[in-house]
Amino acid sequence: MHENALLAHIFTRSQSLVESFPQVLLGPGDDCAVIEVNDGSPILFKVDQLIEHRHFTSETPLSLIARKAIARPLSDIAAMAGSPVAALAACTLPKDFPQARADALFDAVNAAGIALGVPVVGGDIASFRDTNTAIVLSISLIGRVHPRRGPVRRSSACVGDHVYVTGSVGDTFAAAPTPQDAFPGGGKHLRFTPRLQEATWLADSLDGQLHAMMDISDGLGVDAARIALASGIRIELDASAIPLTTPTRGVEQSIADGEDYELLFTVDPSAVLPQRVPGSGTMLTRVGVVTAGSGCGLRIGPQTIDISTRGWEHA
Amino acid sequence: MHENALLAHIFTRSQSLVESFPQVLLGPGDDCAVIEVNDGSPILFKVDQLIEHRHFTSETPLSLIARKAIARPLSDIAAMAGSPVAALAACTLPKDFPQARADALFDAVNAAGIALGVPVVGGDIASFRDTNTAIVLSISLIGRVHPRRGPVRRSSACVGDHVYVTGSVGDTFAAAPTPQDAFPGGGKHLRFTPRLQEATWLADSLDGQLHAMMDISDGLGVDAARIALASGIRIELDASAIPLTTPTRGVEQSIADGEDYELLFTVDPSAVLPQRVPGSGTMLTRVGVVTAGSGCGLRIGPQTIDISTRGWEHA
Repeated sequence: MHENALLAHIFTRSQSLVESFPQVLLGPGDDCAVIEVNDGSPILFKVDQLIEHRHFTSETPLSLIARKAIARPLSDIAAMAGSPVAALAACTLPKDFPQARADALFDAVNAAGIALGVPVVGGDIASFRDTNTAIVLSISLIGRVHPRRGPVRRSSACVGDHVYVTGSVGDTFAAAPTPQDAFPGGGKHLRFTPRLQEATWLADSLDGQLHAMMDISDGLGVDAARIALASGIRIELDASAIPLTTPTRGVEQSIADGEDYELLFTVDPSAVLPQRVPGSGTMLTRVGVVTAGSGCGLRIGPQTIDISTRGWEHA
Repeated sequence: MHENALLAHIFTRSQSLVESFPQVLLGPGDDCAVIEVNDGSPILFKVDQLIEHRHFTSETPLSLIARKAIARPLSDIAAMAGSPVAALAACTLPKDFPQARADALFDAVNAAGIALGVPVVGGDIASFRDTNTAIVLSISLIGRVHPRRGPVRRSSACVGDHVYVTGSVGDTFAAAPTPQDAFPGGGKHLRFTPRLQEATWLADSLDGQLHAMMDISDGLGVDAARIALASGIRIELDASAIPLTTPTRGVEQSIADGEDYELLFTVDPSAVLPQRVPGSGTMLTRVGVVTAGSGCGLRIGPQTIDISTRGWEHA
């Protein structure tokens, strides 16, 4: 089972939803669904799963598992320039999972929600028939759309747009910042801060000049190609401009690492951006341009290579 | 790990959420959370998981797995007299799950949503590291509250209320209705229709006379005791009045079977209810009364037995 193949199947079959259900303003295929619940502003709706051995190792502390589980869908709320309102946690645990550890996991989920600004208002807990299975922790979120800009979609990039990223990319599985809390598979993918503040600032400042946005979860190349596909354009990235977390790792490896949770966005060429977001200090770097065509190319000196599939597939 | 013990832990720790986050109108402990997203009517928010070997057998057709996964949280929307707006599906599949079967499962989820009146607007799909694991299918829902009655909680039963159930209880794992689609573990628990229509009719008709409501998922005794605990009252049921799906099975066994997905509700003693809900024809049966005290008792002739823990714990 390949995630991308199944997603393509799902997107195709879901086209008619928007026609049949008027409350569906945006169905599958973007960072969040956009739904009209009552008369008034639409809401964002998102779910994301975190699975042991897939998204975290068994050595990972519960506090970081909980934090990542909540931070990942929050990153999708940020990718539409929304703000989170409430979360639900659904968790399936191995049979005979110790009660104290289950209590501690819940406390960690609750604390992570509060720390990241979103209350966990309910959920569901169940156990597998078998011991020694993976932990599955799924977080659902609802969010508000930006009151002026509305939801920022993947499909609204225009030829001529400038392409930007927040922060830096690559090496997200590198060792933890301090030796005290180092463990196998530590690093930025467990500790990132969803770019909610930056996304809101972009929508506040740029309004209609902020054209398309998504979060980089699977790698800069494959995610840029997703904007390109949704918008019917091509994205050309300049290798020398891309900010790398670990420059010695090289640009081609860095863009394929995945789990950056940075924002990738396109703006009108007339937009003027500072080098850093006021308040958070997060870097804003122009890394490329939107052209006619399809896919995502990486310009390295005189050559351009196709990087539309260079990323991490969550198998 | 015992679900009830963990839930008790969660409810206790979550009390402060409502104070810290003004958008949380109702946190953990009822059928759904109630959240204020934008100015205007609040929304219902719910997640429920369905796990192979726990909630369905491996012989269950994908169409019935998908149907039950969506119908269970819909039953919780009904339990607050709400109406569903949109669903998300999160699914974790065994490694090497066949692509065609994954496509078919998605199609079944989508079709079940349409059949039950709620569009599946997105989701997340992932696979376990291992083959031969259980399928985990988690459905998140948002819903509207009843425009006049608002969300019907578990905590608003009053001493003197009459207690009712919809339909009949027990024997939900009995064989499927026709020999053609019989398989181990078939039956009502896979085929029930969430009581959305009935709940809306009750709220429309009774308005403020409809005091407390929940859906019977774990058994009439244990669920009635949950209303009793939330409302600070006692529920006394009359064994001879309880409508049993299979009378030969007996009342004590029937109330402990679980997975009825009927509505259990309390109304002001002045309320007048018909024997069946107009339109759907679903039975409405008065089965008991709310008294001062705690827990749930079952009157069998001259004796009363405590049935507060008689039900099915989803371990």
